[in-house]
Amino acid sequence: MTTINTATETILAPLFINSNDLLNHWQGHRRVTRRVIEAFPEDELFNYSIGGMRPFAGLISEITSMSGPGVKGIATDEWTTINEMDHHTGKTEVNSKDALLMEWDRITDEINTFWAQIPTEKFQEVVLAFGQYEGEAYGIILYFIDNEIHHRAQGTVYLRSLGIEPPAFWNRD
Amino acid sequence: MTTINTATETILAPLFINSNDLLNHWQGHRRVTRRVIEAFPEDELFNYSIGGMRPFAGLISEITSMSGPGVKGIATDEWTTINEMDHHTGKTEVNSKDALLMEWDRITDEINTFWAQIPTEKFQEVVLAFGQYEGEAYGIILYFIDNEIHHRAQGTVYLRSLGIEPPAFWNRD
Repeated sequence: MTTINTATETILAPLFINSNDLLNHWQGHRRVTRRVIEAFPEDELFNYSIGGMRPFAGLISEITSMSGPGVKGIATDEWTTINEMDHHTGKTEVNSKDALLMEWDRITDEINTFWAQIPTEKFQEVVLAFGQYEGEAYGIILYFIDNEIHHRAQGTVYLRSLGIEPPAFWNRD
Repeated sequence: MTTINTATETILAPLFINSNDLLNHWQGHRRVTRRVIEAFPEDELFNYSIGGMRPFAGLISEITSMSGPGVKGIATDEWTTINEMDHHTGKTEVNSKDALLMEWDRITDEINTFWAQIPTEKFQEVVLAFGQYEGEAYGIILYFIDNEIHHRAQGTVYLRSLGIEPPAFWNRD
């Protein structure tokens, strides 16, 4: 029995998904999230919330500060610290829907750029994300994606309560 | 260059996550979702909603009818049809929190049982889920998980609006 390369050596169980397919899966979700941002009226995007939660722009700001810099950190081992992240400082310079969407698109490109630089074996290695969260890189990345799905879904409840039909969850085009 | 087995032949890009780790990741999410069910008062679980959406028990019923039977379908190629699924018929025999939690635990076991029977190569093969949704098995399974995260997050907004702190998203123990 021979191994081909280091990537195959790490397989102790069947392949579930490879890194290209996972990136495509994530970017599909990001297209949905972008449509949810677009569906909000400008004022409600920054000011509307339910039960004391953050407005949707605040949730998006958290996603943004985690996802792009997170992939960069995994690719380069250079991490922003948790205290520099928008949802901890509460500071953000993004105060219009257009600016939020522009920042969203910048992060989409940043993810693609740094994803291509992640070393082959890195996904199975333990990293210390943002100087604080320790785990296998695949788990850290799934956290970014799951956190996006989680907060986006909360935004869809805001939309429903405003009488606005949210973009379809299943449409990733 | 030699391949070890069919699983490694399918690797055209680096491994992101193997099937054991993905199952553990999912079951971690299922522990969170179970705690969200528990956090609801009995009446609100079945009757409370926002913006015309389904009560949380209805969302859980959708998750249940998709996840256990979905893994069984991928493992055995025997699928329930979409019309037999609870959220389409609107029928469910589960009408108490205890019964909902019991059904949840049954599905947890069903997922573990049938996951172990999924053939090694199956995750990369195209399947027709529930006779209706075509895609690679990994994508179908990610849909089950993402759909659970999505609807659970909606439930956390219900809880917040009821003045109840939801279980922590990040705690998967």
